[in-house]
This record gives sequence, structure tokens and C-alpha cells, in this order.
Amino acid sequence: MAIRTMLTESFGLDHPIVLAPMATVAGGHLAAAVSEAGGLGLVGGGYGDPAWLRRELSLARSRTARAWGVGFITWHASHDALALALSFEPHVVLLSFGDPRPYLPAIRAAGCRLICQVQDVDDARAAAAAGADFIVAQGAEAGGHGGERATLPLVPAIVDAVAPIPVLAAGGIADGRGLAAALALGAEGALIGTRFYAAEESLGHPGAKERIERAVGGDTVRTRIFDIVRGYRWPGPYTGRALRNRFLDRWHGREGALAERLDAEAPAFHAAVAEGRFDTAMVWAGEAVDLIAAVQPAAGIVTRVSAEAEHRLRAAADLLV
Amino acid sequence: MAIRTMLTESFGLDHPIVLAPMATVAGGHLAAAVSEAGGLGLVGGGYGDPAWLRRELSLARSRTARAWGVGFITWHASHDALALALSFEPHVVLLSFGDPRPYLPAIRAAGCRLICQVQDVDDARAAAAAGADFIVAQGAEAGGHGGERATLPLVPAIVDAVAPIPVLAAGGIADGRGLAAALALGAEGALIGTRFYAAEESLGHPGAKERIERAVGGDTVRTRIFDIVRGYRWPGPYTGRALRNRFLDRWHGREGALAERLDAEAPAFHAAVAEGRFDTAMVWAGEAVDLIAAVQPAAGIVTRVSAEAEHRLRAAADLLV
Repeated sequence: MAIRTMLTESFGLDHPIVLAPMATVAGGHLAAAVSEAGGLGLVGGGYGDPAWLRRELSLARSRTARAWGVGFITWHASHDALALALSFEPHVVLLSFGDPRPYLPAIRAAGCRLICQVQDVDDARAAAAAGADFIVAQGAEAGGHGGERATLPLVPAIVDAVAPIPVLAAGGIADGRGLAAALALGAEGALIGTRFYAAEESLGHPGAKERIERAVGGDTVRTRIFDIVRGYRWPGPYTGRALRNRFLDRWHGREGALAERLDAEAPAFHAAVAEGRFDTAMVWAGEAVDLIAAVQPAAGIVTRVSAEAEHRLRAAADLLV
Repeated sequence: MAIRTMLTESFGLDHPIVLAPMATVAGGHLAAAVSEAGGLGLVGGGYGDPAWLRRELSLARSRTARAWGVGFITWHASHDALALALSFEPHVVLLSFGDPRPYLPAIRAAGCRLICQVQDVDDARAAAAAGADFIVAQGAEAGGHGGERATLPLVPAIVDAVAPIPVLAAGGIADGRGLAAALALGAEGALIGTRFYAAEESLGHPGAKERIERAVGGDTVRTRIFDIVRGYRWPGPYTGRALRNRFLDRWHGREGALAERLDAEAPAFHAAVAEGRFDTAMVWAGEAVDLIAAVQPAAGIVTRVSAEAEHRLRAAADLLV
């Protein structure tokens, strides 16, 4: 038994599951593990650090013979970083948070598929017009950066707006029930982030994974403070969902004061990140942390989420009498 | 063909659809129309105005022989309003936003079922401990008052927390895809609000319905300003999702300034409500307004949402190969 959708057919997958390209967390080992398990592993290209990209993309390519890819933060991407990534021959590039059009020619020339992740219906229409092969409707319950709309009403609105371009759902999905719901909404699969942050193969710090295991959804907050303290000028609509910690409790809602104290706060923050002190350093995490109870191997996550989705779809169909 | 769940079995329904008890909007005519169409119609008891309650509950009782009910805002409810409602012999009472326990003895003594609507997992556990027969997991995408968690990750978290008590999903559901997703998440049905606001039988002003028809999800905002200007002291966690309008653009984010100018602003606001001027008066609406294109009879909404959910569940099961 397997779930077959336009996503699985397009990339030769066994399961309609995509690893969200979480910056610094979704490295080559994790991406390859997801792809080898029959999902689609995406390396988190993030802000485009060349040394990191070279190492992780090389790892991904060497560890899987199946489809894999790489994701970038569009507003921060560069033609150099993209060219470096394409030199490792990924099957797909995911672009999120900005206008994808400047990067389309290079992606097409490399024979790569383009997935655009969007956070509202207008950006979905723009991605469709730009020629995206798949569009990810990302809800605000997602961990890390995102927008303001919630997954459940956003997915069908975007399906209607961009048809017949296939849509994937992201945000709030950490088990097979979420995947089954995404398919019921009309998506062709799901992008899953936080659940894979807590995979054994992820590059997340063990202390961060432990916090994700223990956290509940109400512990997550959309905030700008971790961008401000790191010096990233994220455009207006995007905030990052992270676990509450001492730093967040201190600065969230006092963004102006934090910006004025960067000389003192930024070095201390970077030291906390380097030392894995998560009372200060951020742990990006989505609302679905309620559903994550243990760090597990990526392959087990892929097969369990997919099997549970199959079970849920059969059970839901059995409600029809 | 029909969808059979614990909800439909408990109340003898044809469809696992509950009319959200929208204050001032879900009157007896609308509630009875939903019940007669095979859903569960709930009159919006709201803040408990006796004259309104008497008129609308009498209407509901006289117009349907099927199961129907009434909902109250728990923190604002009174034993008098509840007793008045129970004198009309509803089959079910829904309590939302506060501790249901003070009202449980009267509800039980009347032979009524209790549905508790909650906005987070802790309140779900409390409602389960209090003895709720059904628990509604309401996501922040809902129109009107609500909390901060999103429906898609909240429903399975609450299902896990309160099992085996059956759970309904609310927030962001306006068509059969949303209902199908709710069932895939493990809910036994869906509470639907905004879609029924734009029903022919709702007591919503025609001008408000017209705004809902035209609006998109990004036009909705969670805010406190409409509570402040009306003088309602809603407890901390709850805000109301409404369509953006001139009044919201002027005051949202300036709550303190509005509170200081109530002497001038409140009379002008109440006049706008009375005159149906929705550049000032609020229109509560959820993010799913994207999916609402026309005012329709309630019976047509019930049967169409249910039929589309059946179709989606069959289509999703057909993905299994």
C-alpha cells in the first residue's frame, strides 16, 4: 500500500513527504536519509554560506541516488550561491520568501524543478505566473519563518487560485493525521519541518531537540527578535516561530529596545548559539510540537507518517455509509 | 451516501456539521434551518440578552423537530440566561470562553448534552475533567472570538489529550475540503461559523454578508478594539477576528488611545452598528472567507459541504494504491 499523488509521481517518491529545507538544520545527511526512505529531502541552503553548502550538498549527493534538492531564502539568495548549489545537480530547488523570478533561468537551465513556497494567495498567484512546478502553501503554524495565514483555510484557497498547478501543504504537520488532512484539503503532499528537526540525522543541537521533545504548541511564538539580534533584515510580513525561552520573554514586544542594545546583546547571543545555551539561543519550532515526543531516525519518521496517513484516509473513507 | 460519526449518531444528524452559535447572527431561523437540513443548529446566545433569547429560542423550537441547541459565552453567562434557554428544551448547550463547571448541574438536570469549545490543550483537559460530552477544538483562524492556536495542529493534540471524548474541529472550515480534513485529523465533525453568517437565514446585516462575500482571508485580523469600544471586558487570551475596515485600520494597535476616547467613540460606534455602516461597525469573519463567494440558503450549505467532504474523502482514499 502506498499514497500516490502528483508529487510522488513527479519525483519517483514512495511517500508524499518533503523535508522542509530548514537552514543549518537540514543538512546533507538528513536530506539523503529522507530521500532514501522514499520522501524528498531538501538541504536547507538558508542564507547561502558557501562552505556549509559545499559540504552538505556534497553529502546529500553522495548518500542518495534518489531525488533530492535544496532550498533558499529568496530575498537573501544570490546567483553565486544558487550556481554553487546547482553544480551538485539537485533535482529540485525550493525558493521561499521573495520574488523567485531572478533565479528561474539558472534553475531551468540546470534541468531542475522549481518549488515555490508562499504564505498567501497573492504570492501563490505570482509564483504560478512565474512558472513554479509546485507551490507550497505554508501556514503560520510552521516553525521558523512564515506568514500570517493558517494552513487549513490557506491550502484550499491556494489550490483554487493556482489550479492546475499542484500544491503542497506546510505548517502544523508532524504526523500522519496532518498529512491525511493535507491530502483531504486537495494538496499533493506535505512539507514537514519541526518533526525532522528532531530526527537523529538533523544538524540541530541535541539540546534544541530535547526542548522540542518537551515543548507544547502554546510554547511557540512568532517573533522578530531572533532576526534583530542576528542582524538579519527580514522583510515586513515574515516573522519566525520559535520556542519561548528567557531571551524571548525578555525582548519579545520590546523590539526597538533590543535594536538599540545590539552592541551588548548580539555578541552574548552569538556566544549562546555557539555554546548551545537555549535559554538564550533560538529553537525554531512549529505549533505541532505537541505531536513530537521523541528524537527518531528520519527513515522511521517518513514511513510512520505515511503509514498513519494511509490508515487515517482509510478510516475516514470508512465513515461513508 | 452519508458520513457517520459519533456526532451524527449522538444527535441523529444526517451530516457531521454544527452551526457555530454566533452571537446576534445565529438566530432561531438559521439554527432551525441547519437542523432541518440534517446538521446541528445552535442559536447564538451570546451575552445573554433575555428578549433576544426568548424570541430566537422560541423560533428555533417551533421550526424544527430535530436536535438543536444554544451556545453561550461562558465568562459572561448567567444562571438566569441559562435557565431561560433551558426552558425552551434545547438538546445541547455549547459553552465557550471560560470555566463551564458552574453551569453543569443545571444543564444535566435539564437532560441536555454539553459541548465545550476550547482554544488550547490545557482547557481541553479541563473541559474533559468537567464532564463535557463533546469538545470543540477551535483554531485561531475562526471568525469572532478565539485563541492563538491553529486548527490543523490543535485538533490532533486535543484528540490525544481527551480521548476517548469525541472532538469537533472549528476555525477555517467553510467547505467540504475543510470538513474532510477535520475528519482526517480525527475529529467527529466540524463547527462552521462564517460560511453560515453568509446564509440567507442568518440575522447578519445584508451589508455585512456582502463584505464577507467580497473579502479574502488576508482581510481578517484578530483584534480587541471592537470589544473595547463596546465595553466588553473579554479575558486576556481571547481576541476577535474581524474584517479590516476603516475603524480597525484607525485603532488596531492603539488600544490604549481608544480606551481613553470612549466617550466620543462609543456612541459613534453604536450608531454605526445600528445603521449598518460597516466601515465602522465590525464584521466578525474567519480566514476561510476566501472560500465563500455567495449568500446561500442554509440547507444548501449543509448538503453541499457534506457532499463535497464525501467526495474528498473518497478521492483521498483513491490515492491509496
